[in-house]
Amino acid sequence: MTDAVEVFVPGHITGLFSVHRHADPERAGSRGAGVTLTDGVTVALTPAPDSLVTLNGDPVEMPPVAGVLDALDVTAEIHAETPLPLGAGFGVSGAMALGTAYAANAAFDCGKTDNAVIRVAHEAEVSSGTGLGDVVAQARGGVPIRLEPGAPPHGRLDAIPAAARVEYLTFGGLATSDVISGSTTELSAAGEDALTALLDRPTLPGFIDAARSFARDAGVITDDVAAVLDDVDTASMAMLGRTVYTLGTGLTDAGYDAETCRVHPAGATFEE
Amino acid sequence: MTDAVEVFVPGHITGLFSVHRHADPERAGSRGAGVTLTDGVTVALTPAPDSLVTLNGDPVEMPPVAGVLDALDVTAEIHAETPLPLGAGFGVSGAMALGTAYAANAAFDCGKTDNAVIRVAHEAEVSSGTGLGDVVAQARGGVPIRLEPGAPPHGRLDAIPAAARVEYLTFGGLATSDVISGSTTELSAAGEDALTALLDRPTLPGFIDAARSFARDAGVITDDVAAVLDDVDTASMAMLGRTVYTLGTGLTDAGYDAETCRVHPAGATFEE
Repeated sequence: MTDAVEVFVPGHITGLFSVHRHADPERAGSRGAGVTLTDGVTVALTPAPDSLVTLNGDPVEMPPVAGVLDALDVTAEIHAETPLPLGAGFGVSGAMALGTAYAANAAFDCGKTDNAVIRVAHEAEVSSGTGLGDVVAQARGGVPIRLEPGAPPHGRLDAIPAAARVEYLTFGGLATSDVISGSTTELSAAGEDALTALLDRPTLPGFIDAARSFARDAGVITDDVAAVLDDVDTASMAMLGRTVYTLGTGLTDAGYDAETCRVHPAGATFEE
Repeated sequence: MTDAVEVFVPGHITGLFSVHRHADPERAGSRGAGVTLTDGVTVALTPAPDSLVTLNGDPVEMPPVAGVLDALDVTAEIHAETPLPLGAGFGVSGAMALGTAYAANAAFDCGKTDNAVIRVAHEAEVSSGTGLGDVVAQARGGVPIRLEPGAPPHGRLDAIPAAARVEYLTFGGLATSDVISGSTTELSAAGEDALTALLDRPTLPGFIDAARSFARDAGVITDDVAAVLDDVDTASMAMLGRTVYTLGTGLTDAGYDAETCRVHPAGATFEE
């Protein structure tokens, strides 16, 4: 065992997705696409006799993190720091699960490969009902396209090869678990259509167009988000949160006081 | 078309590999493992009526770069800058091919996904006989393990989830094409054994041990390299070049005037 290990995990905004359930959480997940962010979560892990998880200094219940620690059969204190809001569509729970898995693998010499670490975090996230595709996207970085659902070796990824400024504006949370545990037939049909459109035009403008169509067709847009989308035709809604984002300067150009960051070029990385 | 596009591609030292030939260059390649480096190649591409390739200011013949431009049916000036020596086992030709493919895809709006860009560069590198596994590793970053040969969707990757300081010392080149176009039966058998050993212990010390065993069993160690390996038991030889590298401080600890960098956490990235 070593001292504290720190891992940075990029935030992830899903633009479009379809739900793919499977009894085996390794194979469950989503197809779709999103954007990873230089705004993310720094996870610091220290081996400890009793596990404790804090987020920005406050103790939190975080089932996917507990699931990762259980799967690795270790106990630790996990202190996570992030500028991103929880539950607003930035993949904070996935980031905490993935950061914990990488940090624990290093701190406890678990000897897992990268794919095995991702698998542990993905399974914990899916089993907790807090997300379906954030972990695999956050492990990759960039603008990932999830061609096939699930963790490696089942899931299959591609990406849009591009860098960009990202702006976002958030009004608060939506409960991911309520949406993904309910009926998702209509949402998934919209997600499949949007993914087909994106793969026909795998560019940043193609991504935003596909994401806007998806948000509209999936029927999840809240009134506060809709008002901004009416103003800014290069913006879409984060899945799933009351969050609007754009690639470029669309939100600030329209006068909104948006947060700004960039596409994160790498997946989760050890802090040095 | 846009102005110059710049892409940074990490260097890549292969530690161990086996050769997998196939009539289709997408499916040809190598299995094995290596280390990507923060020392790499910056490729700047400008659309131009006649193609020209320079490396550190000097015009060079670089068949994999020409192959990428041909495959994309474009012409451009490519100016590459690197601190790494050519032909000494750092994947400079793969980096130039991959950087050209990403930059051309962006500059000419080719609309290819990440996997398609990687495929173009891998095919050009394999068809030129200059490398088998650098491109897919350099697109991924970190400490990649090549589980299955070839470009996406055929190739399959994993990695060792770790950061590290890298030191290297080079005495000059070996001709990759001479080795990989000749008989590789013994080398590939050693590579398969070393990969099995690495997958049993997928850690940085496990990587170095597997790479040292491979270098010895493959029968490619030159006298200048052997003398350093005798001094530094945490070092191995870059495949393929008269280059010694270590993860950590082994070379400088032993008094060698080594270059130092780090494992690059990301694959090829657009310069912003």
